[in-house]
Amino acid sequence: MNKTLKIALTGAVLLLLAGCGKLNFDNDSGSGSTSTKAGSFTTTGTNDSGTYQGIIQGGKYKTSQARGLTLTQNNQNGNTFNVRSMEDGLQTIAQGQFATDKYYFEEGQLLTTATTENWLARQKGKYSKKNDQDSFADNSLGLNPAKNKYNDSDANKRNPIYLQQILEQDYMVKNGSSFSLGGVAIALGMNSVDYFQKEKYGATYQTNISDSKLTSEGKAMAAKVIQRFRRMKKVGNNTPIIVGIYKQTKQDSLVGGTFVSYVVSKSGTNVSNWKSVDEQNEVLPVVNGNKAINSTVANDFSDFTNQIKSFFPTLAGITSQVHYKNGALAGMNITINTQFYGQTEINSFTQYVSTAASKYLPSGADINISIQSVQGMQAFVARKATEKSYYTHVFSSY
Amino acid sequence: MNKTLKIALTGAVLLLLAGCGKLNFDNDSGSGSTSTKAGSFTTTGTNDSGTYQGIIQGGKYKTSQARGLTLTQNNQNGNTFNVRSMEDGLQTIAQGQFATDKYYFEEGQLLTTATTENWLARQKGKYSKKNDQDSFADNSLGLNPAKNKYNDSDANKRNPIYLQQILEQDYMVKNGSSFSLGGVAIALGMNSVDYFQKEKYGATYQTNISDSKLTSEGKAMAAKVIQRFRRMKKVGNNTPIIVGIYKQTKQDSLVGGTFVSYVVSKSGTNVSNWKSVDEQNEVLPVVNGNKAINSTVANDFSDFTNQIKSFFPTLAGITSQVHYKNGALAGMNITINTQFYGQTEINSFTQYVSTAASKYLPSGADINISIQSVQGMQAFVARKATEKSYYTHVFSSY
Repeated sequence: MNKTLKIALTGAVLLLLAGCGKLNFDNDSGSGSTSTKAGSFTTTGTNDSGTYQGIIQGGKYKTSQARGLTLTQNNQNGNTFNVRSMEDGLQTIAQGQFATDKYYFEEGQLLTTATTENWLARQKGKYSKKNDQDSFADNSLGLNPAKNKYNDSDANKRNPIYLQQILEQDYMVKNGSSFSLGGVAIALGMNSVDYFQKEKYGATYQTNISDSKLTSEGKAMAAKVIQRFRRMKKVGNNTPIIVGIYKQTKQDSLVGGTFVSYVVSKSGTNVSNWKSVDEQNEVLPVVNGNKAINSTVANDFSDFTNQIKSFFPTLAGITSQVHYKNGALAGMNITINTQFYGQTEINSFTQYVSTAASKYLPSGADINISIQSVQGMQAFVARKATEKSYYTHVFSSY
Repeated sequence: MNKTLKIALTGAVLLLLAGCGKLNFDNDSGSGSTSTKAGSFTTTGTNDSGTYQGIIQGGKYKTSQARGLTLTQNNQNGNTFNVRSMEDGLQTIAQGQFATDKYYFEEGQLLTTATTENWLARQKGKYSKKNDQDSFADNSLGLNPAKNKYNDSDANKRNPIYLQQILEQDYMVKNGSSFSLGGVAIALGMNSVDYFQKEKYGATYQTNISDSKLTSEGKAMAAKVIQRFRRMKKVGNNTPIIVGIYKQTKQDSLVGGTFVSYVVSKSGTNVSNWKSVDEQNEVLPVVNGNKAINSTVANDFSDFTNQIKSFFPTLAGITSQVHYKNGALAGMNITINTQFYGQTEINSFTQYVSTAASKYLPSGADINISIQSVQGMQAFVARKATEKSYYTHVFSSY
């Protein structure tokens, strides 16, 4: 623990004593909540130089209004994998702009619930219906297009919901004993598939949205979003704003989507210099005769799976989320579902998994292996891309 | 991965190819299953020099018949914490006798289901009833006492079930390309409380068993058990046998019991030189006005808890299993139940937990912290007794 952390923690203790009984969430703070009250800040601390410290204000962690909302706004397009992967992915993009040793992380505090609802809505139009889930009354701020006359009938001619969720992350800089906004990162979660019903309680149909359409719609929305953020007093003309376009996966996907493009607006509202992001996700083993993105990785995973299954034939299944970056394998999240009776079986199995992983799984990528049973996680085996050997942990009990 | 492991693994792959379609559990093998077929063995491998490698025979991991049984034999005394902690504890005792770099671990293969059932039963007597769950017909091998005339009426005068479960672990030595039995470790899981009904479907009563009674009964049973194992051909007169007496906790306990005593029989049936084990378990925070075993540890945990709760007031609870060995803190398994919405909240919280753990939790003991939500484990923070800094892992998703 370095010196800075120690000082920060001492502050936290004092705050803890002073703040008893006031420990509620700060959900109603809205856009005014980034105000800097001297002495009321502390940070989460970190033991990894590559991650941001989080800010705690007045003894409590501030959640984002917009983030909670995106989960409930339109459930039929919902996929929790998208939510989590978008959060992580935006932070990764932000790291290129806001150094982790200089900036501190705070959940987005600028977008209020009401604002986010308005932005996610459709424009009001001739074909809007009263009480449409996605059409708020008198909504001139909606970033999604108004319905057209095919909207409830023709999957290919209708105007889909392009923008499914908005995520804001704030990157703060330290000013003496308090923090002020140093940068904003915004993710626009775009549907690759928009699900809809032709009639209430009817069958679900889907409108597929091409990558190029998704990107062009996202870029147009990004320009509007940057303009709107620039008008916020806390942001003004000169706070750097990152906007990333995130392509959501289908609702039945077992892996989240990826960012396809992002732009950094250092000042003003002129948006140019979009950078494309080359990332892909897939789930192994591939099903329905689909082709794996990288056959070497797929074969390695298959060898690993076969080796593991020979040990415990009662395994319910082994799957992996696989992440590619710039064409190369970046990481695998492997889940092994099994049925265990005893601690020593888990111990032996975990040893076996770690040995098989060393032998069969590709090097140079993050590998995380969760060993699950119906009772929850039993053991965990992981190796970072930069490491040679696996860390193993069996969750035991006294 | 060292050379031995590589060779072992190559063997495993060949076996895998040869063994397709034969991957069933080997539950019916009984006491003959430790037979050594040349070339059919491999091991699990290990990346920790302090743990045993497990043995895989014919491509499959052999489970123990006795172990599965103990879970179902008498459900009303069942507590899964006892099962897991007894398994781990017996292995720890075995390590003092069977070095981890020389011996290999195998789930107990000598006790069959039928034998275990007979040994766990009561002796048949005048007050035995037909179809008693715990009285097998014509059972001369039962290690538990026959019922007496108070058995269904008086909690203090009745003969309780002392022996609740038997666990066998085999420690194997390598002979060329195969393995043979090098030692046996047996745990006798003794009830500290025996639960019973005075009438069928009636209220549950309990007979408390004192530590001294539990130990003396256990020692008498250990002598019989050693005699019986010595008569098994695989064991004979000269295979070292360890018998440990394990004191089970009550059925509503959130932590398992501890071993109270063990003996090593190097040869023959003369049992002496019992060694006592000084271990204690508790759950923090203590409830019902009970006193914590060690007030310093309890205070440290309380400080840690308060610090964590200040961060996220929606925490459902923080509890810890605490393990003491020879009067000193040996380890804590802390579970933090919380409600999370997003990945970045979990990231920040995990940083915060690891910083608070560094500051408040005692050093020199194993600390494991699981951060749980209703969706399962979200993150994990751990430090071994010998380490200075915490390992943290947030379970993320692509």
